[in-house]
Amino acid sequence: MTELAPGRSPLSRALHRNRALACSRYVQLATVQANNRPANRTVVFRGFLEDSNSLKFVTDRRSQKVEQIAENPGGALCWYFPKTREQFRISGQLKVVSATEEDVDLLHLREMAWLALSEGARSQFAWPHPGQPKGNSETALQESVNLATPLEPFCLLLFIPHEVDHLELREQPHHRCSYTLQSDDNWEQQSLTP
Amino acid sequence: MTELAPGRSPLSRALHRNRALACSRYVQLATVQANNRPANRTVVFRGFLEDSNSLKFVTDRRSQKVEQIAENPGGALCWYFPKTREQFRISGQLKVVSATEEDVDLLHLREMAWLALSEGARSQFAWPHPGQPKGNSETALQESVNLATPLEPFCLLLFIPHEVDHLELREQPHHRCSYTLQSDDNWEQQSLTP
Repeated sequence: MTELAPGRSPLSRALHRNRALACSRYVQLATVQANNRPANRTVVFRGFLEDSNSLKFVTDRRSQKVEQIAENPGGALCWYFPKTREQFRISGQLKVVSATEEDVDLLHLREMAWLALSEGARSQFAWPHPGQPKGNSETALQESVNLATPLEPFCLLLFIPHEVDHLELREQPHHRCSYTLQSDDNWEQQSLTP
Repeated sequence: MTELAPGRSPLSRALHRNRALACSRYVQLATVQANNRPANRTVVFRGFLEDSNSLKFVTDRRSQKVEQIAENPGGALCWYFPKTREQFRISGQLKVVSATEEDVDLLHLREMAWLALSEGARSQFAWPHPGQPKGNSETALQESVNLATPLEPFCLLLFIPHEVDHLELREQPHHRCSYTLQSDDNWEQQSLTP
C-alpha cells in the first residue's frame, strides 16, 4: 500500500474546513500545449483514489486537455480556499483513463467514477464536440441516451502528485511549506520563505 | 488608442457583479517551466492598464515565475467567479517591468503600481528570498524600510491577452463564447459548444 503523502493531510483538512463552499472542490489545472504555451482551466475535484495520493477528476476525450496530456503529461494544480485563506500548488503527472484503456482495474475505476456522477453531469458527455463552433445541430442534444454505462467520450483523469506547496495567508508572517516526493513513497518536508 | 477587446466587457461585468467577494480578484496564472512542465499559482488582479486590454499584476523579481517568463512569456489565466458561476480562460503574453526597465513610461507605471499597494503588501518585498528554505535569519525581516519608492525586487507584471474563453454555467445548456485577437486590434467572436 502506498504511504500517504504528508502534504495530503493539510489538503484534506482544508477541504473539510471549506466544505460549506461548493467552489472549494473547484481547482485550476494547468497543462502545456503542443506549441509550448500553457493552458489553464477549472476542474472539479472528485476525491482521492482509494489507498493512494492520486486525485480524481473527469474529462471528455474530445477536450483539448486530453490531446495536451498525450503529448506532455505534466500538470500543475492550484487550489485557493477563500474561507481559510490557504493555497495549495500541486505538481504531478496526469493519466487519462479512456474507454480504450487496457488495464481492467483502471477501466473499473472509470466505471465507478461514471456512476458517482449526477445525471446532469453524465448527460454532458452526450453533447456535441466541446470547444467547437456551435452549429445548427447544437440544440439537438441527445437526451435519450442510456446513462447506466459510461458514454464513450467519458474519461477518468488521474493526477499523481510529486510536489505540494502549501501557503497559509491567515497570519503575518505567512507560512509556506513544501512536500517533495523523493523516491519510493518517501516525502521530504521543508519550511520555505513565503 | 487600442480598441478594447469585446471579451473585456463580460469580464468587467463579472468583476463588478462579484465585487463583494474579496477572492473575485484572485486568479490562477499558469506559465511553463524550463523543463517544459507547467506551473500554476494564484495572483491578485490589480486592474486594467489604462486605455489598454492589459491586465496588471505585481510580482517579486526573485520569484520563479519571473525566471519562467524570461524563457517563455506565454501565460494562461483562469478565473472562476463563484457567485455568477462564470469562468474566463485568458491566453496571452507576460511582460515583467523590473527596476532595470529602460522604457520610462513602463518605469512610471511600475511606480504607480507600487503606490497603489497597501503598506503590508509593500513590506513583503523586503522579506528574504521567497520560495527558499527558511533560514535562521527569517525572523529578521527588514521592517524599517523606506516604502515611499519601489523596493528593488518589486516588479509590475503585465498580461497582454490574445484569446478569451468565457463559459457561463448558470443556465442549462451552458453558454460558451471565445474572443480571439486576429490582427491590428481586431477581435473575432464565436459561440462554442460548452
